[in-house]
Amino acid sequence: MFRTHTNGELSLSNLNDNVTLSGWVQTIRDKGFMIWIDLRDRYGITQLVFDEDRSSAELLQDAKKLGREFVIQVSGKVIERTSKNPKIPTGDVEILVEKLTVLNAAELPPFTIEDETDGGEELRMKYRYLDIRRNPVRDKLIFRHKMAQKVRNYLSDQNFIEVETPVLIKSTPEGARDFVVPSRMNPGQFYALPQSPQTFKQLLMIGGMDRYFQIVKCFRDEDLRADRQPEFTQIDCEMAFVEQQDVLEIFEGMTATLIKDITGNELGTFPRMTYDEAMKTYGNDKPDIRFGMKFVEVNDLVKGKDFKIFDEAELVVGINVEDCADYTRKQIDELIEWVKRPQIGASGMVWIKFQTDGTITSSVNKFYNEVDLNKITEEFGANAGDLIFLMSGTENKVRTQLSALRMEVGNRLGLRDPKEFAPLWVVDFPLLEWDEESGRYHAMHHPFTSPKPEDIALLQTDPGKARANAYDLVLNGNEIGGGSVRIFDKDLQSRMFDLLGFTKEEAEAQFGFLMNAFKYGAPPHAGLAFGFDRLVAILDGNEVIRDYIAFPKNNSGRDVMIDAPSAIADEQLTELSLKVNAPSEK
Amino acid sequence: MFRTHTNGELSLSNLNDNVTLSGWVQTIRDKGFMIWIDLRDRYGITQLVFDEDRSSAELLQDAKKLGREFVIQVSGKVIERTSKNPKIPTGDVEILVEKLTVLNAAELPPFTIEDETDGGEELRMKYRYLDIRRNPVRDKLIFRHKMAQKVRNYLSDQNFIEVETPVLIKSTPEGARDFVVPSRMNPGQFYALPQSPQTFKQLLMIGGMDRYFQIVKCFRDEDLRADRQPEFTQIDCEMAFVEQQDVLEIFEGMTATLIKDITGNELGTFPRMTYDEAMKTYGNDKPDIRFGMKFVEVNDLVKGKDFKIFDEAELVVGINVEDCADYTRKQIDELIEWVKRPQIGASGMVWIKFQTDGTITSSVNKFYNEVDLNKITEEFGANAGDLIFLMSGTENKVRTQLSALRMEVGNRLGLRDPKEFAPLWVVDFPLLEWDEESGRYHAMHHPFTSPKPEDIALLQTDPGKARANAYDLVLNGNEIGGGSVRIFDKDLQSRMFDLLGFTKEEAEAQFGFLMNAFKYGAPPHAGLAFGFDRLVAILDGNEVIRDYIAFPKNNSGRDVMIDAPSAIADEQLTELSLKVNAPSEK
Repeated sequence: MFRTHTNGELSLSNLNDNVTLSGWVQTIRDKGFMIWIDLRDRYGITQLVFDEDRSSAELLQDAKKLGREFVIQVSGKVIERTSKNPKIPTGDVEILVEKLTVLNAAELPPFTIEDETDGGEELRMKYRYLDIRRNPVRDKLIFRHKMAQKVRNYLSDQNFIEVETPVLIKSTPEGARDFVVPSRMNPGQFYALPQSPQTFKQLLMIGGMDRYFQIVKCFRDEDLRADRQPEFTQIDCEMAFVEQQDVLEIFEGMTATLIKDITGNELGTFPRMTYDEAMKTYGNDKPDIRFGMKFVEVNDLVKGKDFKIFDEAELVVGINVEDCADYTRKQIDELIEWVKRPQIGASGMVWIKFQTDGTITSSVNKFYNEVDLNKITEEFGANAGDLIFLMSGTENKVRTQLSALRMEVGNRLGLRDPKEFAPLWVVDFPLLEWDEESGRYHAMHHPFTSPKPEDIALLQTDPGKARANAYDLVLNGNEIGGGSVRIFDKDLQSRMFDLLGFTKEEAEAQFGFLMNAFKYGAPPHAGLAFGFDRLVAILDGNEVIRDYIAFPKNNSGRDVMIDAPSAIADEQLTELSLKVNAPSEK
Repeated sequence: MFRTHTNGELSLSNLNDNVTLSGWVQTIRDKGFMIWIDLRDRYGITQLVFDEDRSSAELLQDAKKLGREFVIQVSGKVIERTSKNPKIPTGDVEILVEKLTVLNAAELPPFTIEDETDGGEELRMKYRYLDIRRNPVRDKLIFRHKMAQKVRNYLSDQNFIEVETPVLIKSTPEGARDFVVPSRMNPGQFYALPQSPQTFKQLLMIGGMDRYFQIVKCFRDEDLRADRQPEFTQIDCEMAFVEQQDVLEIFEGMTATLIKDITGNELGTFPRMTYDEAMKTYGNDKPDIRFGMKFVEVNDLVKGKDFKIFDEAELVVGINVEDCADYTRKQIDELIEWVKRPQIGASGMVWIKFQTDGTITSSVNKFYNEVDLNKITEEFGANAGDLIFLMSGTENKVRTQLSALRMEVGNRLGLRDPKEFAPLWVVDFPLLEWDEESGRYHAMHHPFTSPKPEDIALLQTDPGKARANAYDLVLNGNEIGGGSVRIFDKDLQSRMFDLLGFTKEEAEAQFGFLMNAFKYGAPPHAGLAFGFDRLVAILDGNEVIRDYIAFPKNNSGRDVMIDAPSAIADEQLTELSLKVNAPSEK
């Protein structure tokens, strides 16, 4: 037997017990006549002691040969520590070692296995198995496990059935690029890896499963950004005989349960906001509502005062930053520079200070007198001591820019506490968005999303105006889930494919099986999917999803630990009826 | 709201309630003046009634227009049935319908949606979503969900952490063929889909996760047999600082928990048997121990009596079939023909009847007198009324043949009750098996399996004799799980790769990252994986794993419902730097 206890469980109640422990050597303090070793495993740290008086000379010598990260097994007696460590659960005791076995020696690790490590990102990715030994990394994976377990238990209790849908499916050109898998048994043909189990979950609803969920790997062959992985995990759900309201209630309950488990707090009903309102009030369809600074539009108040920039702008809109009238010129200039960065692209902005003495000054005193400025501060509901920023431009652009400013100011003021959770439903998304490049409409959510019944007529007259029965769950400024009520009528589905520019043949080739299924009694259904990696990161007060993935890929889609992808043998290619084209200049 | 209740929950306690139900029209009985409809959903059946006296003429007309599998919504009052149906939970009541809405019409389904359907296998695969509406199919998927939930809860309670390992990994030529995934961002390079997360779970142990599990999809590009799927699901587990005994205890507990949940019975400690004993006693490394008929070897008793077939045989071995001495000549001839089938390949067999009157006859009376036969029946411990079959040949072959006979006789005698569970651990498998074709050893389990410590010396002298610390869990004659104690010493691992015919370069290219990881403090570890599809099928008293997969593939690896795999666009191939070779004569 390798151990009688783990390294996290011994206490004074075990005094004088003979125990056997195993683990990794975390630290060695060698005082010559005495050696202390911190022995580590997943469960904690236990202090081992070897000393001249109480241990054999040979044992002491053996202990001196140990190095960091050696895997050892020790037997000995639990004794009380003279200097206790109240920071760890085992801090009252230590083990007077009587027997030491080296289970495996270790070379010096390429970085320190401590909470704060000296290893850079790339090195830690290459030796990910060593990085996982560090508490912060391991704890994130354990946190993820617990969240998955809670999701599964919550949904199972609500009568959802987890059904595994296939990974080897059919390629469809809609959406992002598919990863494909050549079929040896069907030469020249390919499977695709699913971007989501969308059609399968709809087929399960047609199959009468009523409530389906799955925590499932999905795949997208996109050019990677920092927070994207080629494989990612979704909590995928679908329900039959429901309306939007039913879906929102279930998943609000699920999210609240997870948050309660973390914070101990009941959140109450989640607020809901239409897409239009979110865009108008926060310039963003995933607003962070942990703090205010709602947008105020002031076209009426600022135009016609000879300030050309505002006169020519489609929209002048601003935010009120409370209690910041004492911002220095330098602080304000910094923010102005910040919005001028190419990523934001603003040409500048106007500030108005409502001083604590009641006076109002601004960067546009030339054009606006105190009466004018007073009206503006009133419109914002500003108080003495507040600072207002105004930006201007075309509607969409200025809202996006002001939204970025709002988040930046929120960050600088510490208003975005990662331990505070402010969920929000955003509803009534547009059904379609116009794509200039291809000159046609794209589905904003996906082609199976139902328009709002009252907007179906718009599909003929003004499709861009039609709203969808689609909803997103936003948490702290991040979209953590999204879904929609689905089309379940084959004629409406055909019209959608028409609108999206599919020919009848294309629609048939790609979605024929779903259209066909609609003929045999499709129930009304709706669903939703959560990005599980992101959900877990945010619930843990973090935004870097890669930290919550055991073996993530880098930004080139490579696993640098196992060195994948890699070349394969020619015979394998031949078996697959494939040839690799000579790689181009890459 | 589409429903106030499901179709499985109304009873006399709801009498006179106004309810709304939704579902599929299962059956329509139209008596002209009255119509009864069985309304179905996942939860059950509720009877609806429309009649001339109590319903409007219009409503009755609308009801007459309904067809099988129409999706409808009804509102009405719960009333007591005059003729009750005790077979279903809602059988005491029916709904007097006041309002009927057709949510979706349905074409006549291609087969009947009944427990016993008229649809053939192929048709049901093509319309799998309709097949899932049938109770037996849906119930199997729900059963699978419940088993997965129980496995997860059991393992989580035992401190196992579910960690998701990557699906896009590195191709390794060992074992079955990998499915590969071309990388667009790394032209000419490929990911592979995992045949199992073996190396990742070992890295997690090196990473200190201590106890890992995952219910995970795995992939093998094999020529398919009836019970194989290109994608399948494993319960994958690994533990650190354990010996074989610890692993067996945990997973014995897990299996016993699942079985207790199904049968209500405690199984007690699972028996254990060495591989050698299993082969000697049952001719098989996965014996069905629900019934006896253990092999008895009789070389000593049968040789030297001028019966040439036995004299020349390496092994004469038989089984005693209790209480079957009354088998007719026809019954026995049938079994003789059965073992002569090409799949079994025996040339014949000898029978000995120990009649109820105490006399003994046999098919080899010419060679063996009553004293001889008496000795044989004694050796078998046979009683009056028993029937003995003897087969002969080379050791391995005759054992395999007799094992097949034993199973067949077990089937014919009804000794293989699918509701009875007889688990068995088979341990001490050979480490290696000699492959005639390639003229080298293969790992019987996989290259990471540890030899038994006492057999390590044999690796130099007689590798084929070395036993492994490997174990299988066998249930009712099926291997449901298997695993091993792993090598955790880099030198021993190198020697294993040598033995298996890897060059240093090959071992480095394929498993370098694992060998490297062994340098930095690998703990002793061991693990096991269950074939989840098969486990679920057997626990449900079935052996066809395909029935427990929501969307299975056929024997050519095709999904006939969505028609995958399929050709992809030329542009997609170009992006992937690939060319398809003109398909050959296939």
